Amino acid sequence: MNLLKQRILSDGQCLDNGTLKVDNFINHQMDPALMMAMAQEIANRFDNKGINKIVTIEASGIAPAILVGYLMQVPVVFAKKNVPSTMEHMISTPVFSFTKKRCYDVGISRNFLSADDHILFVDDFLANGNAAMGIIDIASKAGAQIAGMAFLIEKGFQNGRQKLLDMGIHIESLAIIKSLDNCTITFE
Amino acid sequence: MNLLKQRILSDGQCLDNGTLKVDNFINHQMDPALMMAMAQEIANRFDNKGINKIVTIEASGIAPAILVGYLMQVPVVFAKKNVPSTMEHMISTPVFSFTKKRCYDVGISRNFLSADDHILFVDDFLANGNAAMGIIDIASKAGAQIAGMAFLIEKGFQNGRQKLLDMGIHIESLAIIKSLDNCTITFE
Repeated sequence: MNLLKQRILSDGQCLDNGTLKVDNFINHQMDPALMMAMAQEIANRFDNKGINKIVTIEASGIAPAILVGYLMQVPVVFAKKNVPSTMEHMISTPVFSFTKKRCYDVGISRNFLSADDHILFVDDFLANGNAAMGIIDIASKAGAQIAGMAFLIEKGFQNGRQKLLDMGIHIESLAIIKSLDNCTITFE
Repeated sequence: MNLLKQRILSDGQCLDNGTLKVDNFINHQMDPALMMAMAQEIANRFDNKGINKIVTIEASGIAPAILVGYLMQVPVVFAKKNVPSTMEHMISTPVFSFTKKRCYDVGISRNFLSADDHILFVDDFLANGNAAMGIIDIASKAGAQIAGMAFLIEKGFQNGRQKLLDMGIHIESLAIIKSLDNCTITFE
């Protein structure tokens, strides 16, 4: 998606440690017009796939997910990283975050995921695929089908895509980073 | 807002401990059409107030905030509950959560909040106002003006509103709960 790639080149920052920082338009400050354009692109790519629910993980996935859900006219469920005391019947799974260097439990209530569901998972980044694998585990426990996964930005030099393809998942990423070497952003 | 009040009556659950559970349409599973209608109502109520930025706190505030930002055509910033290693220059403040019975730090990067900003704070709930007071503290440290605060649901029997009114804040809540006594939901 050219609009996103141009924005990454103009406003993204490549840090010395190989991190791509997009916190001025995607995951801290958000540009709602760009976010809606990306949601429209995702909705187009997954049109007529029988999707009846959008699933994401708090926090950065929520903004694109609610917009995709609005456009596709289906409910949106966000997996929670901490289970509040008021919530029972959670289906949970551990996810390891490379960014934060720690493991956390992610959970969705059994009330909102069932064998009737054909879900589209929406998230901001695909890198090593750990969060996506967590959602696959939760969906499996609920008997739900994964109709596809959509990511705003994919780090193509990491192994998330291969893991998901090996499981037969349909993946769409709006911008795929080929390399961040020498702090230069190149796309596939 | 009658649409929201009717939905709270039909789908909200009042728990024995006095909690109002709206996790099937607001803060776990979300109804995007209702969310957009609420965002439109908020945008209408704060039209022509000179607002140039929406601020919220992860995670439940993000969905209404991105929609309000989209409608008002201004950037949206969500305060983070944990500061990632990639983010410097955070303005942070401690917030005590009664729901989770613990204190957590909330932060916004100095890059995204300045003395030029007239912000609208958007969140799902107003109860004791602790999160809102945290944002007031952060805005004050950044020199930003708070043009108003919008909440989907207010617990009118708690003291958040009075705290904010005492500070001269313009508050709009789409549904104000008068009482949850005996597990019966009544509105003001």
